[in-house]
Amino acid sequence: MSNYQMPRGTQDILPAMSSKWHKLEDLLRQFCYVYDYSEIRTPIFEHTEVFKRGNDSSDMVNKEMYTFMDNGGRSLTLRPEGTAGVARSFVENKLFGSADLPVKMYYMGPQFRYERPQKGRQRIFNQFGVEVIGAKNPLLDVEAISLGWSILSALGLSDLKVLLNTLGDDESRDAYRTALKEHFKKDISSMCSDCQRRYEQNPLRILDCKVDAEAEIMKTVPKIHDYLTPESKAYFDAVCAGLDALGIPYVIEDRLVRGLDYYTHTVFEVVSVNEQMGSQSTVLAGGRYDGLVEYFGGPQGMSGIGWAMGMERILIALEAEGIDMSDPEELDAYVLCLDESAALEAFKITTELRAAGYRSDMDYLNRSFKAQFKTVDRKKAKAAILIGETEVKNQSVTIKRIDDQTQVSVPMSDLIDAMDSMFAMEDEHEHTCTCGEGNCTCGNHE
Amino acid sequence: MSNYQMPRGTQDILPAMSSKWHKLEDLLRQFCYVYDYSEIRTPIFEHTEVFKRGNDSSDMVNKEMYTFMDNGGRSLTLRPEGTAGVARSFVENKLFGSADLPVKMYYMGPQFRYERPQKGRQRIFNQFGVEVIGAKNPLLDVEAISLGWSILSALGLSDLKVLLNTLGDDESRDAYRTALKEHFKKDISSMCSDCQRRYEQNPLRILDCKVDAEAEIMKTVPKIHDYLTPESKAYFDAVCAGLDALGIPYVIEDRLVRGLDYYTHTVFEVVSVNEQMGSQSTVLAGGRYDGLVEYFGGPQGMSGIGWAMGMERILIALEAEGIDMSDPEELDAYVLCLDESAALEAFKITTELRAAGYRSDMDYLNRSFKAQFKTVDRKKAKAAILIGETEVKNQSVTIKRIDDQTQVSVPMSDLIDAMDSMFAMEDEHEHTCTCGEGNCTCGNHE
Repeated sequence: MSNYQMPRGTQDILPAMSSKWHKLEDLLRQFCYVYDYSEIRTPIFEHTEVFKRGNDSSDMVNKEMYTFMDNGGRSLTLRPEGTAGVARSFVENKLFGSADLPVKMYYMGPQFRYERPQKGRQRIFNQFGVEVIGAKNPLLDVEAISLGWSILSALGLSDLKVLLNTLGDDESRDAYRTALKEHFKKDISSMCSDCQRRYEQNPLRILDCKVDAEAEIMKTVPKIHDYLTPESKAYFDAVCAGLDALGIPYVIEDRLVRGLDYYTHTVFEVVSVNEQMGSQSTVLAGGRYDGLVEYFGGPQGMSGIGWAMGMERILIALEAEGIDMSDPEELDAYVLCLDESAALEAFKITTELRAAGYRSDMDYLNRSFKAQFKTVDRKKAKAAILIGETEVKNQSVTIKRIDDQTQVSVPMSDLIDAMDSMFAMEDEHEHTCTCGEGNCTCGNHE
Repeated sequence: MSNYQMPRGTQDILPAMSSKWHKLEDLLRQFCYVYDYSEIRTPIFEHTEVFKRGNDSSDMVNKEMYTFMDNGGRSLTLRPEGTAGVARSFVENKLFGSADLPVKMYYMGPQFRYERPQKGRQRIFNQFGVEVIGAKNPLLDVEAISLGWSILSALGLSDLKVLLNTLGDDESRDAYRTALKEHFKKDISSMCSDCQRRYEQNPLRILDCKVDAEAEIMKTVPKIHDYLTPESKAYFDAVCAGLDALGIPYVIEDRLVRGLDYYTHTVFEVVSVNEQMGSQSTVLAGGRYDGLVEYFGGPQGMSGIGWAMGMERILIALEAEGIDMSDPEELDAYVLCLDESAALEAFKITTELRAAGYRSDMDYLNRSFKAQFKTVDRKKAKAAILIGETEVKNQSVTIKRIDDQTQVSVPMSDLIDAMDSMFAMEDEHEHTCTCGEGNCTCGNHE
């Protein structure tokens, strides 16, 4: 049996759905423009080592990666997340030498994780993310969170909660890890096998466990905030002060550790509290990473902050809140070909309309007049352009306005002028009106 | 040794380079909008069978694909081209049932082929392509070519040549294949091993051979045009007539067969004749495919036409012709923080400017005034906003215009109004001027 379906956990974005992606992407780009973040595009696959770093204990790295050998015997991995590739690129392209640090970047595109598909979780999914690398300042953490928050607000999402925590510096985390091991010591044998592995590899990750989340031992777990060095505490306080100054609401969630091992200091998530989101409610998540650039061979002290947003989840969240992102098709003109013999002239006219910027189409199937007019309706065309044997003989065309059903016949050579005076002038008036032109018809200049 | 370089044959698109990609992509989307082509996005990988179809003899399918097993034992392949996925999606999503056929689609994004990298040829490369599926009409072939030609012209490319050919229908191709086998029969044993395989699998592909291209036997090769059925000839003549009607120049190239096995009737390429392009001079290529939809289990008669454009090659061709696509960074405002104690106020002001739509940034490194002012220059900011201890105390800010070096001090709460009257009004004048406002400063309304 052949396999002509899309692979499990993937989806086609069909023509009718793509406009909402465009709307989302345009808004994201616009915000990045205003915030002076520029796009970086890294390869879809990287050498496996870029993602599989040392003792990384995350499920993503250990269970969910698409890893394969290429024809030249290299182990490659489809990127499961964006930060590692950007950090690799930052080092390889020596962006740490930029005159203006930090380098503020964003990325947009597919990521790949072999997980059990469910609503809001696909094996190929799209992320928009930002990375700000090369400076450490709590206000940069706030700026990054502010950018995400502004985007979510501009989209109209309101059922949102910002969760904030810190993992502190190395010293804080070492002290906290020791406390966690002490806390779980007695009970670890009764906990899930993942937690038993985490206990050895990275006890912080136990806080992430879904299986043991409700266990009694979790309720009395030590808090990171009791193990922070004064510097780490001051850094976190400054982040909170910055968020307060901008009026961004947040909740300190002391069990938030995030699913990746490279985070230090600030970590955060934005979750949707809309009940239709189900279990996949995190729409944006990220944190600061102090050591990643150095890990890839870059200079010391190039700290970064970043987050990623699941674009499919954002669209689900928008739908859950009843926010319409669709952009219905609307043609400027549909050319009706009334006789097969007029097809070439109809085609030339369609081409001419397009060259003048009118979104246009025509019938290529020699369908009946009635069928063609149904297309005019379906495509919500503003004008129907009629051309048949008679029109070709007279070198004329008929323009029918759909809104008021008026129609005029004009010489073929005057079509664009006629369209301009019937339609474009009004639409474009604010842009093209230079006041004082005698043929201005908008009525604003009496 | 660890592998922290990007994989061979891939590239990073760095922040400074991404604006030219945006410019290209925006232009492509705008043309598709006007031509009423909508975007489709299919998965980065498909089941291998989607690309490896029956007796396909192309190098792409046989040598260059990234194929691997996923954790569930499925054979997956990173898409080497766009058409197969779109045809699979067209069938799986029953787009053949659309009220308005043909369905006109475009796609944009990465493709993957394991080839020897060289200028204009990467292992991960980006294609923009169109597919028009569900109707067969020579004018659709012309429309598709016209769209490509219009895009290339709008980009300003001029060193271009359109090569056109037909492969005819099945009957024409069968007759031609027999003639080719007869022609090559005596010499096939002295030809390259690929040609010997092609001789059995698909003798048309011999015409594509780079190795034997200059052999004597190639010069006397039969021409497809002598084997066309009357219907196939009429179809091709109609395509030529359509191109003539639109004034699109082309050259009939009777050895053009294209590297994919699914083509029928019209095939075409646009090549750059600019010598800097080297051997990878094809910037756009495509053709009609009659049987692909049926192959994927769709209804009969759903013919398609499409082409793809190598986006990296387009950028190389633009550069070769000296056409600048870059879009230098230019900030509206850069906020200079004169004292560390003013950092939070500077940050609030930066956020406020951004919220008002001003592309803004600030210093996060507590650098010297001089260093910060260098950034103002590098980022070509229109305004420098100065804030220090005194300004915080007075709740004021200083705005310095960079063009005429004038500066004003305004209350913090008036910053946006002051910016609007200093800058936005002029820039936006054509859009916002409603004539008769007393404070209009553009001078056009005396």
